[in-house]
Amino acid sequence: MTGLPRFFAEYQEQVTHELRCIVPDKGGPVERAMAYTALAPSKQVRAVLVLLCAELCNGDPARAVPAAVAIELVHAASLILDDLPSMDDAPLRRGRRANHLEHGEAIAILAAFGLLNLAYGQLAHGFDATMATHMSAILSNAVGPAGLIGGQALDLQAVDQQISFETLERIHRGKTGALFVAAAACGAVTAGAAAEPIAALAAYAKNLGLAFQIVDDLLDVAGDPAATGKAVRADARKTTFVSFSGVDGARQLAAELCETADRALAPFGAKADRLRELSAFVASRRL
Amino acid sequence: MTGLPRFFAEYQEQVTHELRCIVPDKGGPVERAMAYTALAPSKQVRAVLVLLCAELCNGDPARAVPAAVAIELVHAASLILDDLPSMDDAPLRRGRRANHLEHGEAIAILAAFGLLNLAYGQLAHGFDATMATHMSAILSNAVGPAGLIGGQALDLQAVDQQISFETLERIHRGKTGALFVAAAACGAVTAGAAAEPIAALAAYAKNLGLAFQIVDDLLDVAGDPAATGKAVRADARKTTFVSFSGVDGARQLAAELCETADRALAPFGAKADRLRELSAFVASRRL
Repeated sequence: MTGLPRFFAEYQEQVTHELRCIVPDKGGPVERAMAYTALAPSKQVRAVLVLLCAELCNGDPARAVPAAVAIELVHAASLILDDLPSMDDAPLRRGRRANHLEHGEAIAILAAFGLLNLAYGQLAHGFDATMATHMSAILSNAVGPAGLIGGQALDLQAVDQQISFETLERIHRGKTGALFVAAAACGAVTAGAAAEPIAALAAYAKNLGLAFQIVDDLLDVAGDPAATGKAVRADARKTTFVSFSGVDGARQLAAELCETADRALAPFGAKADRLRELSAFVASRRL
Repeated sequence: MTGLPRFFAEYQEQVTHELRCIVPDKGGPVERAMAYTALAPSKQVRAVLVLLCAELCNGDPARAVPAAVAIELVHAASLILDDLPSMDDAPLRRGRRANHLEHGEAIAILAAFGLLNLAYGQLAHGFDATMATHMSAILSNAVGPAGLIGGQALDLQAVDQQISFETLERIHRGKTGALFVAAAACGAVTAGAAAEPIAALAAYAKNLGLAFQIVDDLLDVAGDPAATGKAVRADARKTTFVSFSGVDGARQLAAELCETADRALAPFGAKADRLRELSAFVASRRL
């Protein structure tokens, strides 16, 4: 996790603190399985994006923490599902054995369900009703068949298949992009932002999310499991951005997407510099 | 499904109409798998309970339909999970092949996830922010480790184990009772009810839900799969209320719980007669 912008640490700390409070690693088997993935070491890029967008829209990032946590819980849930035997059947995640290998498949599925459910609880309890409902609607749209779940279904269909670049992009706009967009939008909503800055930040996040996925594909080819926390070449049976464009082409594509992302930040001027640092990190991360 | 109170039909019709709109049986594989279970023939007892409680608290049941649908979606999600190979490994549900047998395990899991997610979307889109947030909090509590998910986890642990009557009750207060309570509370919330009637209806629903489960156990022993829509004796490896109390004892217990449920309706007087008809149906249903 080298190369993370320096400012990450203070945001991560707030998110981790809150996560530990609401998903304590104790209680019954489902609670422990929820904590196992939700509290595993992670860059928490999506959660930090929430806080940065709140701050950029003149909100207090500390007030946005429950939204950041909600997004992180949904992400953790999606990782558990991705790794299941009926999906990617992956043995390693965040440097640990996959949730279902550690806790059993049934409990892992219930834990994923519980994390998604808890995310909505966080929104309902963490904000005034208008903000909570707005974010609930954003999240439901991002997770549903038009977003995360739809992307995952397309991804499953694509195993061992020849797919077009457009389909590949659609998969990852769903699997990764949708939650990045929801993170940015929720951050802005917690600051009471108007429709225009919300749309600008969503455009930034949409391109950032896709770039993030492309670099993930690069790391899957070239990375070291000790550093990525995942088994390398896990995606060998899938078409990836690297199999389409080659290593250099994919690296180039990620850089271009980050430039497009940055262009959406123009209205914010220098105030958005931390988001620019974030996209620079995403474009260049090697681990 | 003989013996259903006559008034059920008009409520079921409203719920089914709305379900067909929001989970149409078309689109990608996940959407179709969601519709497969959510639109399968069902008594929709939980959804009707929402509408009855709304009406009893002087609300318009038509306004409560999105909440009824949300509860029904969560219930459908829980059925898909229950039947998975890693859980009850059940072949038959609502008279059809289990979701994972029809759509594959991965898509079934995503469909369950999608139904839970859509339930929260329904609340966010169907009500003003205050009501939506209140119901979101109620639902998150009912689904989480203290409710549905916790009950399901306990149930899994109990397979092939000797468990106490208290544990059996805890399992079903979680697996079945929690969503009945949420249904009643949400119905009352849509009518803008105060804390006292909400609490009374929750007490009614808590006992009704447990009675409902006990009668399910009876039907599992004695029922006909053509009528129950489930494989008979699916619970042979589990302790049930019937294995504890025998057929007559379980029937008696269900009747007593329904009497307790009815006592909570005293403050409503004759206005609650439809809820009394519902509990009479639950206590006596043979199919």
